[in-house]
Amino acid sequence: MRAPDDNIRSTAVDVLERLRARRPRIHCITNAVAQAFTANLLLAAGAIPSMTISPEEVADFVIGADALLVNLGTLEDSRRAAIGIAVDTANEKNVPWMIDPVFIDRSPTRAVFAQALIRLRPYAVRLNYDEFTAIAGAEGTIEAISHFARDTGTVIALTGEVDAIADGKRTVRIANGHPWMSKITAMGCAGSAVVAACLAVESDPWLAVAAGQVIVGVAGEVAAEHARGPGSLAVAILDALNDLDRATLLARAKVT
Amino acid sequence: MRAPDDNIRSTAVDVLERLRARRPRIHCITNAVAQAFTANLLLAAGAIPSMTISPEEVADFVIGADALLVNLGTLEDSRRAAIGIAVDTANEKNVPWMIDPVFIDRSPTRAVFAQALIRLRPYAVRLNYDEFTAIAGAEGTIEAISHFARDTGTVIALTGEVDAIADGKRTVRIANGHPWMSKITAMGCAGSAVVAACLAVESDPWLAVAAGQVIVGVAGEVAAEHARGPGSLAVAILDALNDLDRATLLARAKVT
Amino acid sequence: MRAPDDNIRSTAVDVLERLRARRPRIHCITNAVAQAFTANLLLAAGAIPSMTISPEEVADFVIGADALLVNLGTLEDSRRAAIGIAVDTANEKNVPWMIDPVFIDRSPTRAVFAQALIRLRPYAVRLNYDEFTAIAGAEGTIEAISHFARDTGTVIALTGEVDAIADGKRTVRIANGHPWMSKITAMGCAGSAVVAACLAVESDPWLAVAAGQVIVGVAGEVAAEHARGPGSLAVAILDALNDLDRATLLARAKVT
Repeated sequence: MRAPDDNIRSTAVDVLERLRARRPRIHCITNAVAQAFTANLLLAAGAIPSMTISPEEVADFVIGADALLVNLGTLEDSRRAAIGIAVDTANEKNVPWMIDPVFIDRSPTRAVFAQALIRLRPYAVRLNYDEFTAIAGAEGTIEAISHFARDTGTVIALTGEVDAIADGKRTVRIANGHPWMSKITAMGCAGSAVVAACLAVESDPWLAVAAGQVIVGVAGEVAAEHARGPGSLAVAILDALNDLDRATLLARAKVT
Repeated sequence: MRAPDDNIRSTAVDVLERLRARRPRIHCITNAVAQAFTANLLLAAGAIPSMTISPEEVADFVIGADALLVNLGTLEDSRRAAIGIAVDTANEKNVPWMIDPVFIDRSPTRAVFAQALIRLRPYAVRLNYDEFTAIAGAEGTIEAISHFARDTGTVIALTGEVDAIADGKRTVRIANGHPWMSKITAMGCAGSAVVAACLAVESDPWLAVAAGQVIVGVAGEVAAEHARGPGSLAVAILDALNDLDRATLLARAKVT
Repeated sequence: MRAPDDNIRSTAVDVLERLRARRPRIHCITNAVAQAFTANLLLAAGAIPSMTISPEEVADFVIGADALLVNLGTLEDSRRAAIGIAVDTANEKNVPWMIDPVFIDRSPTRAVFAQALIRLRPYAVRLNYDEFTAIAGAEGTIEAISHFARDTGTVIALTGEVDAIADGKRTVRIANGHPWMSKITAMGCAGSAVVAACLAVESDPWLAVAAGQVIVGVAGEVAAEHARGPGSLAVAILDALNDLDRATLLARAKVT
C-alpha cells in the first residue's frame, strides 16, 4: 500500500499529463482583475479557458466545458446572474464545479451568496484563512475544515503558507509555493482555475485538488528561481508551468 | 511589376512607419480578458488605444478614432449595445472597422450576432478555422475563404500556423509567428487590434490586413528568441514590436 | 529649516516605509483595462487592493478601506453608480479619495461627470495636460494648476515628462520616470492608485501626492535598467517597487 503522500505525488504527475493530453475546457466566471492571468495560467497548464459571463451565453459554455470555476471577486449583478445559470447547468450536466469565495470576509452580502452556493454542492471550495472564518464561523484548524467539509459534502482547500485539504475523511498538507506569490494579484484565483482543471481529469475531487495545489506550488517555486520579484514571478510561472516535467514535480512536491 | 509578396513586404514596412508617424487612434470594443494586452500591443505598434464600451460614450470615441475593432469575446448585453452604436457610427463617419468573432463556434447566439454584423460590411473579419466554419458553413480552404470574402464584400483573414488572407480577388499566405503565441490569451484579439490599426493607415484593406499579419508574426518570432515560454513571450513581443525595424521586417516576412 | 525638496524626499522615504508597515487597504473603482496592473502595483508598494464596482458591495469595501481611487476610464453605467455610492461613503467616513479623470478630453459626458465629482472635494486630482485643459478650460501652466487647485480646494497633480503638483499655496516639480512608461497601458492609472495609497498614510495631501509621484517615478527608472522596452518595463517596475529602498529613493528623487 502506498502512503497517502506518494499517492498525491503520483496523482499530480498523472493529472498534469492528462491536462496536456486531453486539453480540458474550463469555463471561468471570475473577476475582471483575474481573467487574463487566469486564462494564461490555464493555457500554460494545458487547459483551454473560456470566460464569458453573459447570461445568454453562459449555459452554452458550461455545457461545452469539462469543469467550471466560480470566483466571487467583483460580484456585480451580471456575474451573480451568470453564476446562477452556470451552477444549475453544471449540476444538471454533471460538470465538476468549484468556488473561490474571494473577499467574503470583506462583504457580508458576498458571504451570504457564498453560503447559498455551497448548499448547491460544489466539488470543492478553495479559500484563505479569513475567508474560511467568514463562511464557517470558526478558525481554520485542520479539525474545523475537516468538519466543514463533512457537513457540506465538499472538499475544502485552505490556502496559506502551508495548504490544508480535507474532504471530511482525508486531510493532507502541501507546503509548496513562494512568498512572492502572495504579492501577485489573482495568483489565488488563477490557482483555483488550475484546480478546476484538475477536477476535469481526476474523478476523486480530494486527489484532484491536492494535485492542483502541488502543480501550482511547484511551478511557483521553479519560477522564483528565474525571477527578481513578484512582477517577474508572474511571468515566469507561466513559462515554468508550461515546461513542468514529471521529474521536477516528483522531486519538489512537499506533501505531508 | 513587383511580385505580390514583394508588394506585401514593402507595404508592411510602410504601414509600420505610418503607425509610428501618425499614431492612429484605435477604438476597441473587446473582451475583458483581452483589454490590457490589446492596449499594450497597440501602444507598442505606435497606435493609441481606447476601450470604453459605455453606450453613452462609445459614439464619441468612434468619431474621434481612426479605426474600430469589434471583438465578440465575453459578449454581455452592454457590449452588444455598444457594438451596435459603434458600428453605425463607424459606417456613418467612414471609420474603417473590423470584426474578430471569438468563439462563435461555441455559442450559437454569438454566431447569429456575428452574421448580422458581417452584413453591415466590415472592412475585414479575422478568425480561426473553427470560427470560419461556424460562420461560413464550410471548411476553411483558400477557395472557401475567397468565396466568402467575395460574397460578403469583406477581407477574410483566416489565422493559423499559416494565415490566409483573401478579398475575393487576391489571396496570400503568411507563415510568420511562433507556436507559443497560441498559448497566450488574447494574442489573437490583440493581433486583430494591430490589424485594425493598419486599416487606419493603409487604404487597401487586403494589403492592410496582410501587413498587420506580417508585423505581428515577425514581432512574435523576434520575441521568442528572448523568451523561455508563453509567459515571457507575451512580455517580449511588446518590446519586440516597439523596437521592430525595417530590415528585420523585410528579412523575416514569410509571404507566399 | 529644510528646503521643500528635502522635505518631499524625506516624506517619500517615510511614506514608503509606512506603506510597508501599515499595509493600507486601497479600494479602486478603475477601468477594466487597468485593474490587474493597478492591483499588482499596489501590492508591490505594500498596499492591499480591492476592486469591486458592484453597487451592493462598494460601500462595504470603502468603509473598510484606508483610501479610495476613482478612475473614469471605461465609464459604464454600473461604474458611474458605484462611484456615486463610493464617494458619498468616503466623504461620510472621512476616507481620503482622489480622481483620475482618464480621457475626459475625448468624451464630453465624462468631462461633465468629472466636474461634478470635483465639487464633492476629492483630496487630489491626477491628470495629464489634455485632461487638465478639458476640465479647467485653461492650458496646464504652473499658474493655472495652482489657481485651479485653490478654486477647487484639492491638490492637482499634472503628469507629464515633468510632473507639477499644486495645492493653491505650494507647487513642486518632479522629474522622475522613463519614456517607456508612457507606452504601457494603465501605467498612469496604476500610478494614481499608488498616490491614493500615499494619501492613506500621509495626512498632508500635497506631500502625499508628491511622495507618490517620486516613488513611482524612481521605481520606473530602476526598472528601465532591467528592461528592453515597455513590455519588460511593466514587469520590472513591480519588482523594482517591491524592492525599493531608502537609499535609492533619496539618491534618485528629482524634486525642484
